[in-house]
Amino acid sequence: MKVKVSRKAHFNAAHRLHREDWDDAKNNVVFGRCNNPNFHGHNYDLVVSVYGEIDPETGFVMDMKVLKELIKERIEDVLDHKNLNIEIPEFKNLNPTAENIAVVIWNKLRPHINASKELEVVLFETPRNFVTYSG
Amino acid sequence: MKVKVSRKAHFNAAHRLHREDWDDAKNNVVFGRCNNPNFHGHNYDLVVSVYGEIDPETGFVMDMKVLKELIKERIEDVLDHKNLNIEIPEFKNLNPTAENIAVVIWNKLRPHINASKELEVVLFETPRNFVTYSG
Amino acid sequence: MKVKVSRKAHFNAAHRLHREDWDDAKNNVVFGRCNNPNFHGHNYDLVVSVYGEIDPETGFVMDMKVLKELIKERIEDVLDHKNLNIEIPEFKNLNPTAENIAVVIWNKLRPHINASKELEVVLFETPRNFVTYSG
Amino acid sequence: MKVKVSRKAHFNAAHRLHREDWDDAKNNVVFGRCNNPNFHGHNYDLVVSVYGEIDPETGFVMDMKVLKELIKERIEDVLDHKNLNIEIPEFKNLNPTAENIAVVIWNKLRPHINASKELEVVLFETPRNFVTYSG
Amino acid sequence: MKVKVSRKAHFNAAHRLHREDWDDAKNNVVFGRCNNPNFHGHNYDLVVSVYGEIDPETGFVMDMKVLKELIKERIEDVLDHKNLNIEIPEFKNLNPTAENIAVVIWNKLRPHINASKELEVVLFETPRNFVTYSG
Amino acid sequence: MKVKVSRKAHFNAAHRLHREDWDDAKNNVVFGRCNNPNFHGHNYDLVVSVYGEIDPETGFVMDMKVLKELIKERIEDVLDHKNLNIEIPEFKNLNPTAENIAVVIWNKLRPHINASKELEVVLFETPRNFVTYSG
Repeated sequence: MKVKVSRKAHFNAAHRLHREDWDDAKNNVVFGRCNNPNFHGHNYDLVVSVYGEIDPETGFVMDMKVLKELIKERIEDVLDHKNLNIEIPEFKNLNPTAENIAVVIWNKLRPHINASKELEVVLFETPRNFVTYSG
Repeated sequence: MKVKVSRKAHFNAAHRLHREDWDDAKNNVVFGRCNNPNFHGHNYDLVVSVYGEIDPETGFVMDMKVLKELIKERIEDVLDHKNLNIEIPEFKNLNPTAENIAVVIWNKLRPHINASKELEVVLFETPRNFVTYSG
Repeated sequence: MKVKVSRKAHFNAAHRLHREDWDDAKNNVVFGRCNNPNFHGHNYDLVVSVYGEIDPETGFVMDMKVLKELIKERIEDVLDHKNLNIEIPEFKNLNPTAENIAVVIWNKLRPHINASKELEVVLFETPRNFVTYSG
Repeated sequence: MKVKVSRKAHFNAAHRLHREDWDDAKNNVVFGRCNNPNFHGHNYDLVVSVYGEIDPETGFVMDMKVLKELIKERIEDVLDHKNLNIEIPEFKNLNPTAENIAVVIWNKLRPHINASKELEVVLFETPRNFVTYSG
Repeated sequence: MKVKVSRKAHFNAAHRLHREDWDDAKNNVVFGRCNNPNFHGHNYDLVVSVYGEIDPETGFVMDMKVLKELIKERIEDVLDHKNLNIEIPEFKNLNPTAENIAVVIWNKLRPHINASKELEVVLFETPRNFVTYSG
Repeated sequence: MKVKVSRKAHFNAAHRLHREDWDDAKNNVVFGRCNNPNFHGHNYDLVVSVYGEIDPETGFVMDMKVLKELIKERIEDVLDHKNLNIEIPEFKNLNPTAENIAVVIWNKLRPHINASKELEVVLFETPRNFVTYSG
């Protein structure tokens, strides 16, 4: 019996959408207000899901305490109260769009989840904008 | 890398569930209070999702500003503060159940989304009743 | 020890904002899209609060089961799936604005709440628009 | 045209995670605070979804009033305000983890849903922990 | 300039409403399903608010990190995953109704909040039932 | 009959808590992670409430369309996607704590609300931290 278990987490951060190799006009057309050179920010809500067989001994697909701790250590402690563009190496040359942040989070978590299980990341940039990545 | 991007929107409208070719007794059995001839109404919450490859240049699957504007123009401006049965041509001969409204919304949006991308519509009739249509 | 106890409830209904004694132009300026002659509608969320002394025997300010039943009988059964303008006598000559609906609900409940207790009604017309009336 | 229709429901219950065949030390390592012998409890939110063809006559995949009544009768009336370990036979020898409760709920509902339709259960143990089971 | 600062917290617990000095019939009439001798439980959401002058140096009424830590230490660590009737001394002879739990929480926090500031506690027993106590 | 009408709005912004006249050690003790020199950010949710008599002609305390437009023009257009410390003059010498932002917003709105009516501002810095200011 395969079940998907999901855990919500949270961090907030500043970011900016911008390409150095584009001029200001093109940056403004494509990224609009998100191109503000002084940054803006978000409360990011994160839902991490793991899909796999229920362990018949424990009744768990994955211990939620372990998943919670893993998200805290690998994602919240790394991204919370940070400037994504300046302080997070993955975004030195990659725009921190919601799509790219979701992929980066998935890549950070994947090695720590049992290989027999599937991983999905949902990232809310605002309560009205969110993205889903499953690898 | 394929990601699903989602955008929430909102409209409110009046509607009634009713078939002209059924008598009152059958309409009442099947549609209950939703058959009120004077109409009732809902705040409809809508989540539109587009699934496809991240554009490596922008980091977007689809520009959320464009998606937001598309939903406003094709759905919110058309359905908001309307009587679905009387004012929306698609429901002249089609019951405006949540299922049918979701299909109508999907059909209205599909031509305006890049053909290489998948489209999904989730429509909340109330916070406790909702439907999902993916074509 | 005085405590406020609150209970959430829900109904949905159609309505229209309109004054017969105004011409169409004035109705449109003041009421905008809410003046649609074919009606539109909302999911109304309602929070009813009662403030008073805790009964030392039961530990209740007011039995929530009784409050829930009272709201069901006096408000939900009366307003749910209705057209407020046509079917609710109080709105025959009173615009069903959120403000006026809240006052009508308060007046319907007040006689059934112990006189030593205060009553407050919060009515959400949408998740973004709501009103509060305390008598 | 296949649509997924979803209905939210709610119950609250006490439970405990524990295996009789393990000693206290192992129970504490695996189940932590959830192993409290005096029980703790949750407000469980439940989303039941049915996926299938829209009936062209009614515009329904499944009548939401019927689905609501089915969930009430088979799940809410059975589990609400109960101690899952002591009072629900399925958990006499099965740990009431969120995963296992979701499977038990799915099994209770499946015989009452038309065989041509798919069934999915999402169970929120808290707003931050939830599981999904689709058979 | 006086501002109210509020912090949400969370715990879950089992409880039962019951009076030893009443017979079963009276307990059932007054407390209904909440009288289940095997207990049931809730996810309690808690909002603690402190009202007072903004400190012109820090811009804080009260440091939210301190308030968060205070709630964790005095309330969450004490009540989370507990059986309120059996394990919390205040409820040995006091029914753990939402009203009484709110008063107990207020009394636990009051000595640790600066005397010049007002304290308010809102306790959600379910998303639809909640109580407010301000001393 | 006095009623409070409330309208929710939204903006997101970057900020930093910091005093130039304190050394790094003191800034870190008082402001913790919020002192990050590269900024972090939030999705700020705002609830603006106006309390006063219902106009018997319109049934409005204040036209919600006017209130919505006022919040957009005076608050959202000014603060959205901005760096509060660098781009908003009020915070050149004032820490943008939630408390101070709420007071600044209240001061920006007060001149545009009829003097006979009371004004209240609730600002959510995160879903778990919020402040209320009523003048």
